[in-house]
Amino acid sequence: MSAFEWEKNIRKVVPYTPGEQPEERDIIKLNTNENPYGPSETLYKAMSELDSDSLRKYPNPAAHDLVKSLADYHGVSIDRVFVGVGSDDVLGMSFMTFFNSDREILFPDITYSFYPVWADMMRIPFKEIPLTEDFRINPDDFCRENGGIVIPNPNAPTAILMSREDIIRIIEASKDSVVIIDEAYIDFAPEGASVMDLTDKYDNLLVVRTFSKSRSLAGLRIGYAVGNPKLIKYLNDVKYSYNSYTMNEPSIILGKAVISDDEYFRETISRIVSIRERFTDELKELGFTVLPSSANFVFAAHPDISATDIFEAAKKEGIYFRHFNAPRINDYLRITIGKDEDMDRVITFLKDTYNL
Amino acid sequence: MSAFEWEKNIRKVVPYTPGEQPEERDIIKLNTNENPYGPSETLYKAMSELDSDSLRKYPNPAAHDLVKSLADYHGVSIDRVFVGVGSDDVLGMSFMTFFNSDREILFPDITYSFYPVWADMMRIPFKEIPLTEDFRINPDDFCRENGGIVIPNPNAPTAILMSREDIIRIIEASKDSVVIIDEAYIDFAPEGASVMDLTDKYDNLLVVRTFSKSRSLAGLRIGYAVGNPKLIKYLNDVKYSYNSYTMNEPSIILGKAVISDDEYFRETISRIVSIRERFTDELKELGFTVLPSSANFVFAAHPDISATDIFEAAKKEGIYFRHFNAPRINDYLRITIGKDEDMDRVITFLKDTYNL
Repeated sequence: MSAFEWEKNIRKVVPYTPGEQPEERDIIKLNTNENPYGPSETLYKAMSELDSDSLRKYPNPAAHDLVKSLADYHGVSIDRVFVGVGSDDVLGMSFMTFFNSDREILFPDITYSFYPVWADMMRIPFKEIPLTEDFRINPDDFCRENGGIVIPNPNAPTAILMSREDIIRIIEASKDSVVIIDEAYIDFAPEGASVMDLTDKYDNLLVVRTFSKSRSLAGLRIGYAVGNPKLIKYLNDVKYSYNSYTMNEPSIILGKAVISDDEYFRETISRIVSIRERFTDELKELGFTVLPSSANFVFAAHPDISATDIFEAAKKEGIYFRHFNAPRINDYLRITIGKDEDMDRVITFLKDTYNL
Repeated sequence: MSAFEWEKNIRKVVPYTPGEQPEERDIIKLNTNENPYGPSETLYKAMSELDSDSLRKYPNPAAHDLVKSLADYHGVSIDRVFVGVGSDDVLGMSFMTFFNSDREILFPDITYSFYPVWADMMRIPFKEIPLTEDFRINPDDFCRENGGIVIPNPNAPTAILMSREDIIRIIEASKDSVVIIDEAYIDFAPEGASVMDLTDKYDNLLVVRTFSKSRSLAGLRIGYAVGNPKLIKYLNDVKYSYNSYTMNEPSIILGKAVISDDEYFRETISRIVSIRERFTDELKELGFTVLPSSANFVFAAHPDISATDIFEAAKKEGIYFRHFNAPRINDYLRITIGKDEDMDRVITFLKDTYNL
């Protein structure tokens, strides 16, 4: 198409490419870190609340019922919780709100690929801090002047967990900027790994979570942040200035219902963690290097077989992994933990295809 | 609360204040232009598609099924439709994408109050073009250098419709910028009032719609835009750079279902239009000035009674109107058209309270 006159005056960005969402039903989809188990059944009972009156009217702009149930669940006051349309929305709003100085924000060079995309789009200067040789975050590298810091814990796609002590060092060295810890996968890490409790102590710490992984609700798009009431207030001010009603009624009602079923939540997580451990051992037996995972996926490489090759061969068999064609990690595959039978098929596929 | 060190480096905005969403069930809520009739019943049948598998997985990032049903409904190709979390999200993304020059964007001085909020937040220079004495838009005033134009048609809160000819004059005078016509209320206007068909002819025209008014689905948060494929592509690029999955699965599935029931849609609109005409006549009989409405609300003032007074007195009776404490319009009340019995109660209240 030829250029139009108005094109010179608009914002052109190179868009983020999300993982493939193939529509076929019989594939093994291990490429976007979804939960293989469905959401809590409590959700279906709550669906009857989606009546004519609740759908024709605007939702509560503060998504009060959902915020309240999250606040109660985490034992914090409601003015310390912010909700958004997936953690992407929460993180995007946070970038817009908190990363507003002329100084560079910091995040790892190998990390969630949306961070540089948001920074580019919002024209926030940034510096990517290299991970160590063994793909770990060295906290010292983050103790420098900055306009803000964002780190996923566990990191993605490495799945490696950072210690609370290391995070505390970073927060204490950055008192005049906001430190965001993106805990999208923290529910799959050992107890006590989260730093959410530290939001009480550190007014510049924001902890972000999502319903898309451990809560089995990627289809509903719910993310949230917990922090000091003042951080949450600034975040809400920006949210209300962009879209007063981001959370629709199904998200509020069904999200709240799912939070109430803690038993199912813990049970599915423990199942996934145990499948992850078993699958990791099996991959190692086949000669793979597997980074120590605290998430619902593993990051693995084989010394003799290219990741691209495995990725393509698996896809032909209807098995979807994620491969990042990026420096340092293009030998690796990110494999979501599915059900036992899914992982069995992966192991069988690898053995059969590569005579391992 | 005292100031924190990080506060100097963040974005502080004066947030938009949405209309009140009182929680009591027995009130008459005529303050946020919701539809008094519920959404099409086809929606409840579609709800069974919200199964475990569709909720645990990410939705289709392009919201394909919803986009396809909108494209079919309007007789356009799918690359000409963009969907978002309410028309606020669609408009917000459009501001971010298309209003990116150093020139002032133009919109009426009396209009949807979110426009200056978005411009402020995104640091877009803007000029508010005064409506005429009788609250109309003079197209000549918009035929000047600009970085973009946004006009609701019918305008809000005046409810007054602009002619196609006037809109065409504005579009033709602004070939190097994008003109957004916000048709949130167009379904309540006479047939042929929409300029959506002109998106075929004018590559710089974007028409925005919402499910929140005529489709009775404010609770689901669905808005959309129709325009040239290149406009839609740029919009999607920005969307994918902010949040790949803005539309959740309930929005996609239920939104699509509602589109399929055109008969119910037309029937409720015609009911609302006829109640609006009857209510307008009755207000006039009570001495009110009522601007000619092509929307699902009326904008009315009484020569002898202050709007603030009526607003407060009505609220005490459980009747909610919208009042804008702004120059030129603070004598007016915006009253949403509800069911017959709601409007009867309004008339009775006015007669009884003010001896009209």
